[in-house]
Amino acid sequence: MEQVKITLPEDEIPQRWYNIQPDLPAPLAPPINPKTHKPLGPEDLSAIFPMELIKQEVSMEPWVEIPDEVMRAYQLWRPSPLCRARRLEEYLDTPARIYYKDESVSPPGSHKPNTAVAQAYYNKEAGVKRLCTETGAGQWGSALSFSCTLFDLECVVYMVRVSYEQKPYRRLLMQCWDATVHPSPTDLTNAGRKIRERDPDTTGSLGIAISEAVEDAASDEDSKYSLGSVLNHVLLHQTVIGLETKKQLALVDEEADVLVGCVGGGSNFAGAAFPFVKDKLDGKEIDIIGTEPTACPTMTKGAFRYDYGDTAKLTPMLKMHTLGHDFVPPPIHAGGLRYHGCAPLVCLLVSQNVIEPRAYHQIPVFDSALTFARTEGRLCAPETSHAVKAGIDEALKCKETGEEKCIVIAYSGHGFFDLASFEKYFEGDLEDYAYPQALIDKALEDVPDVDESSIMD
Amino acid sequence: MEQVKITLPEDEIPQRWYNIQPDLPAPLAPPINPKTHKPLGPEDLSAIFPMELIKQEVSMEPWVEIPDEVMRAYQLWRPSPLCRARRLEEYLDTPARIYYKDESVSPPGSHKPNTAVAQAYYNKEAGVKRLCTETGAGQWGSALSFSCTLFDLECVVYMVRVSYEQKPYRRLLMQCWDATVHPSPTDLTNAGRKIRERDPDTTGSLGIAISEAVEDAASDEDSKYSLGSVLNHVLLHQTVIGLETKKQLALVDEEADVLVGCVGGGSNFAGAAFPFVKDKLDGKEIDIIGTEPTACPTMTKGAFRYDYGDTAKLTPMLKMHTLGHDFVPPPIHAGGLRYHGCAPLVCLLVSQNVIEPRAYHQIPVFDSALTFARTEGRLCAPETSHAVKAGIDEALKCKETGEEKCIVIAYSGHGFFDLASFEKYFEGDLEDYAYPQALIDKALEDVPDVDESSIMD
Repeated sequence: MEQVKITLPEDEIPQRWYNIQPDLPAPLAPPINPKTHKPLGPEDLSAIFPMELIKQEVSMEPWVEIPDEVMRAYQLWRPSPLCRARRLEEYLDTPARIYYKDESVSPPGSHKPNTAVAQAYYNKEAGVKRLCTETGAGQWGSALSFSCTLFDLECVVYMVRVSYEQKPYRRLLMQCWDATVHPSPTDLTNAGRKIRERDPDTTGSLGIAISEAVEDAASDEDSKYSLGSVLNHVLLHQTVIGLETKKQLALVDEEADVLVGCVGGGSNFAGAAFPFVKDKLDGKEIDIIGTEPTACPTMTKGAFRYDYGDTAKLTPMLKMHTLGHDFVPPPIHAGGLRYHGCAPLVCLLVSQNVIEPRAYHQIPVFDSALTFARTEGRLCAPETSHAVKAGIDEALKCKETGEEKCIVIAYSGHGFFDLASFEKYFEGDLEDYAYPQALIDKALEDVPDVDESSIMD
Repeated sequence: MEQVKITLPEDEIPQRWYNIQPDLPAPLAPPINPKTHKPLGPEDLSAIFPMELIKQEVSMEPWVEIPDEVMRAYQLWRPSPLCRARRLEEYLDTPARIYYKDESVSPPGSHKPNTAVAQAYYNKEAGVKRLCTETGAGQWGSALSFSCTLFDLECVVYMVRVSYEQKPYRRLLMQCWDATVHPSPTDLTNAGRKIRERDPDTTGSLGIAISEAVEDAASDEDSKYSLGSVLNHVLLHQTVIGLETKKQLALVDEEADVLVGCVGGGSNFAGAAFPFVKDKLDGKEIDIIGTEPTACPTMTKGAFRYDYGDTAKLTPMLKMHTLGHDFVPPPIHAGGLRYHGCAPLVCLLVSQNVIEPRAYHQIPVFDSALTFARTEGRLCAPETSHAVKAGIDEALKCKETGEEKCIVIAYSGHGFFDLASFEKYFEGDLEDYAYPQALIDKALEDVPDVDESSIMD
């Protein structure tokens, strides 16, 4: 019997998260105040985040102990399996060995709860009673709802109205976990009321939902805000993925030659990749590839500079690859990964050529998802399909060269809530579309220049 | 760290299925021809089933070797975890220890592929090119689609039209696995055309879909038919669940005092229970409880007698608990488990008081699903919720008596495709309803009497 699933016992769940900040090959530009352009201090964030998470955001300790209560939550689904995709290898007729690290096994079906349970825990410890967040299609909102129910916190989710109305299933899932879900914009916040006065029929946007969640959290002393990607502490919590993957590879005497993941805000990719990035920085040969859609080509076509995290310019400015904070993905795009920016830690490593960014058209991405479903049996999310596509491409390269590489795919989540996207694919309603550089350049004209030299002193 | 998930290595997947037929406490009444009332011979089934499955249907061998290719398919998700529901125990404040055997981890999300991959394999071996089946909401259809893609068989699914139109997600899932899905009734079969002539706007029924799938299979020599529950060979394949559970309990020095499962056709329940039934027949004390809805109270209120498997009276007659083949579940019922009959093997054991049947109202069943989701994190299917309800009830009894029982819940599948049912629950659109005995008695008047004495000679 040839092994397929490399499972670890529960007591092999990593006990520490890996913090890449002390190992970075260049200094990380700090978040800055959107008005003064001055670096933010811990006190600037304390209205919306508990102090422990703010400390993690700037920590230079290479390892952060995982609290017992978080470990206990992780036990509900971790360690997640690392699977050898033998049927896919046979179908591709490749000499490569393909593995996928399956984060779809968590109760909400993605990697998101790796940080959601940690954030719920630290907020609970800080005496917070209520967490506010935003969600688009609902993946992050459902992960935070799940986590809040474990830690007995109230969870309030501002869900983009168009998703609230057209995609009721993830909303219902959040309600099953006892969350309160509002279609955003609401009449509950100044930000929401202002938008509704101007445009009563608005279908909402993630930018607006962020503004509402932040305002709600900041205006209630028992409440804090929670973010599902981009920030350093979020990526830190996700490193449990890569740390487990390394243990599992070692069990079968493997070392990764190629690691591929998909990048939206960057948290799944970073979580899987950063422990391998450390090896690469220490001299090991490994290709680390972050994939994104050509319809939202943040890393491959965006500028690496300071920009706002949201449309309303309320969040701190971050130095990252950006398409401009006004970016709206083309309506033809069904493939997920729609954020205009990306985690500063990932972007820094892209800018240093440690991580290779790669953009794919959406139709071949959906093709790859079906190839995977019809060989390995599992249906992945459109986001995850970008990683699968890269894994398949790398395996096909090996077929040409004869190289017997070990390829690891960061498999971030299942596609059970994304079947409407697959319907568009089956019905031929998708088009391949590359977002034009001219539009990006134009959007970036609206981003104020920041004098970085004074900040990095 | 207290253990939560009891995982087995892949080489501990059981290598044989357990066949309960030689161990039964009373003789099993054979299927009979619906017209002549004579017991069926193997040749009567050979138009729609391959010979290996027909042999298994009547086998008196206690163990059946699992073929290597089926083992290889099982490796994609088996062994499934047995989980200790510690958070649920704490919430209930019970001295009982609650475990759940999680079959939701399979790619289609339920126990169904345990038999679907086996059926696909035996058909492939017999030279069959194409499998036909019916499906209601799509759980069985998606399991067979998944299995056919693994064994390179064409899969044709007749899906009840109302589900095809109103529940597109499982249909799309089947298409992701390359199945052809027809809204039934179709114009492709005599059975379908006849119904459509009479009633062009019909929304279909499972009975009609069965008739179409059987006709399609019987009229094409490269095709066979596949059934997802009720029959002996289906239950046989599912015993991998209970066999694994016993190994896992042994790993933590446990023995089950109570085993609970939900019963529709009976395959998940039988698969989990039969290895424990054997122990019980050998003298061990264990409560084995099969649960069903009061809206479809087959085992608790139905008659134990011969009846047809389908509305159209095309299938063989089976001796089972039945509400009458014309039974239609009340429209208010959202809780799954809607079949008028039940597996003859399960019914025989109910009639012999080896298995205790128990019926639940749907609202407390949904309550239990939410209690489980908000403690253990996982959202179960409405069918599975019946088993969870029984597990919670048994644990609460232990709280009263102080007994430290070991309770095992057969957790058959996740509820990600059933969120519309949870929506009805949240919106207060559900009612508790007990199907009246008078209606059952009346329906049974239409079932012809069968002279059992001549059959059992």
